[in-house]
Amino acid sequence: MAKVTPWEVEGNIDYGKLIEEFGTKKIDASLHHKIAEIAGEEHVMLRRDFFYSHRDLGLVLKDYEAGKGFFLYTGRGPSGDMHLGHLIPLIFTKWLQEKFKVNLYISLSDDEKFLHKRNLSWDDVDKYSARNALDIAAVGFDPERTFIFRNSEYAKNAYPLLMQVAKKITFSTAKAVFGFTNETNVGMMNYPSYQIVPSFFEKKRCLIPCAIDQDPYWRIQRDIAGPLGFEKAAAVHSKFFPPLQGIEGKMSASNTESAIWLDDSEKVVRKKIMKYAFSGGRETVEEHREKGGDVSVDVSFQWLKMLFEQDDKHLKDIESEYSSGRMLSGELKQLLVDKVNAFLEGHRARRDKINIDEFMYSGKLSKKMWETTHKA
Amino acid sequence: MAKVTPWEVEGNIDYGKLIEEFGTKKIDASLHHKIAEIAGEEHVMLRRDFFYSHRDLGLVLKDYEAGKGFFLYTGRGPSGDMHLGHLIPLIFTKWLQEKFKVNLYISLSDDEKFLHKRNLSWDDVDKYSARNALDIAAVGFDPERTFIFRNSEYAKNAYPLLMQVAKKITFSTAKAVFGFTNETNVGMMNYPSYQIVPSFFEKKRCLIPCAIDQDPYWRIQRDIAGPLGFEKAAAVHSKFFPPLQGIEGKMSASNTESAIWLDDSEKVVRKKIMKYAFSGGRETVEEHREKGGDVSVDVSFQWLKMLFEQDDKHLKDIESEYSSGRMLSGELKQLLVDKVNAFLEGHRARRDKINIDEFMYSGKLSKKMWETTHKA
Repeated sequence: MAKVTPWEVEGNIDYGKLIEEFGTKKIDASLHHKIAEIAGEEHVMLRRDFFYSHRDLGLVLKDYEAGKGFFLYTGRGPSGDMHLGHLIPLIFTKWLQEKFKVNLYISLSDDEKFLHKRNLSWDDVDKYSARNALDIAAVGFDPERTFIFRNSEYAKNAYPLLMQVAKKITFSTAKAVFGFTNETNVGMMNYPSYQIVPSFFEKKRCLIPCAIDQDPYWRIQRDIAGPLGFEKAAAVHSKFFPPLQGIEGKMSASNTESAIWLDDSEKVVRKKIMKYAFSGGRETVEEHREKGGDVSVDVSFQWLKMLFEQDDKHLKDIESEYSSGRMLSGELKQLLVDKVNAFLEGHRARRDKINIDEFMYSGKLSKKMWETTHKA
Repeated sequence: MAKVTPWEVEGNIDYGKLIEEFGTKKIDASLHHKIAEIAGEEHVMLRRDFFYSHRDLGLVLKDYEAGKGFFLYTGRGPSGDMHLGHLIPLIFTKWLQEKFKVNLYISLSDDEKFLHKRNLSWDDVDKYSARNALDIAAVGFDPERTFIFRNSEYAKNAYPLLMQVAKKITFSTAKAVFGFTNETNVGMMNYPSYQIVPSFFEKKRCLIPCAIDQDPYWRIQRDIAGPLGFEKAAAVHSKFFPPLQGIEGKMSASNTESAIWLDDSEKVVRKKIMKYAFSGGRETVEEHREKGGDVSVDVSFQWLKMLFEQDDKHLKDIESEYSSGRMLSGELKQLLVDKVNAFLEGHRARRDKINIDEFMYSGKLSKKMWETTHKA
């Protein structure tokens, strides 16, 4: 059985069933149409149903069209260096910021990761927070409209609102939603409050792009937003970016070989994809030529589909070549290797030029945030 | 049955039994002797057993004599304006600071009070924090060695250590110690972590003067101090300052008539004591003259004993005059009225001259604290 909580994703996931379980909605044709109409295009992750579920996305678009606007919020738990999977929601978020010209808040939940991971020290989260901030900024956000902050550092500004949120969440609610037990530490029990706080940074509606496993936080947010005088958060939910070893579960930092790290060299990327990327190809070349490959389980194809081959015609060609057996697994993998290496090269070049202070302290939005104490 | 938790003190309290229950120790003759030797005198509250219990007070004195030193920590929950009962531990703390020349940290637990009291708004705790800080400083602490801080405001500096403490406390521990239930909010569950944090502000031993109901916090502190690389907290525990209506329970802010507020006028003080102070006198003057009053239940006498009549000979005279029936209840009450009014006048005069910035931001210790981020 698949298991999905904010801290665990395992097994073969039925994404349709998650929509039912979580009570969210599929992004339907009319929403797709509306977004394309406003943005002038649809991001590849929307077009190909990688972002596939939502809460109140229609209201967000309505607010936007009515001139009321909205804002974006997402986050990253700095428990280690970042891999490709971590960038996925950020890449989509960047597109949303660019198309809608809205403020974006990105939390580095150093507190959560420290509290949750037994062997992670505060010095570790310190170090990873600094490095992660650079990788996040390198995605290409607007430095004047983006505020990247560490929960620990922003605590003074957030504290009154944090307490106002915490006062609204009982242990029984937290237990039901997150499965807390007697052995859970008391810091972790209060952490959901801080994850909710940035969704109240403005009086507008907040749109949260995230993997669907993060949805439980927003259910609590939606219960308490009204009583605190804020809007219920809206969300767009993605599927999980699959690990190299197979399309089950999600890319995990705890298995180095299942992930491509942002600092992996060209050679390492090539080696990992060639060696580990689960293939939909057949046992022998002869069999493959005869029966063709299975794109539905082929990780290389799925990565191309989710992000790396954005040209729909090219992707279609690849699919038909591979399914028919004309393209071999090694050839398909080489396509991905080239795309991933080009992507990583661009990412690192952007990262080298980042002035992180703009995003965290001195940009227009950041500066304003450090002058604000948040209260309901 | 008496009920004693950090949020509730009810009924007739057996202070000897609390020592057994909490596993603390009586302040014995040799400790009394030692303190008098070092300080040159014993504070009236020690001499008369109002501060009567402790943890590791002997080790504190040993550290002091060995030149290692120690520091003081106490606090105040800003849920309203302050009454006489709130000043009691502070007056004793001031004496300790004066005699031992040590640093003192005083937290205003605005977070705890907001989280705990259903009808208290954040604006309320804001307002009371500002007013309480003035009343606290007016007790006469050394502005260069004292740091008065609001938990909310100091959150950024305290946050890494706060998380390190929180990670060590499980829900089952918190539940056992504080009686938390499913309906307790998640902020309250994490609050004990913050109450413990200041006991780790220095690597020296921390001495905490407090009413005995606060002891549960320090039991947890003592369990986690070692693993985090700090000293176990020491404590000196007081009895409760009795309300006007009788020596049971403690003076409570929720019953206005049971307390003398720091801003009560001379006339109000007189009226409250004359009307409400529970008397150990007899029904009629004749009976009183014949049988004498009972000082053990007489609140006016107890207040004189705990603080307001510091001259031992005078107190003894009052006791014998009242017990013999020569002094009437009205006369005893008038003695207290005069003492309390003189005390309040002095308090308010000191308060008018306070530069609160020294205690909170600009004094030697305060300034240093705002430049510090705390970590284990």
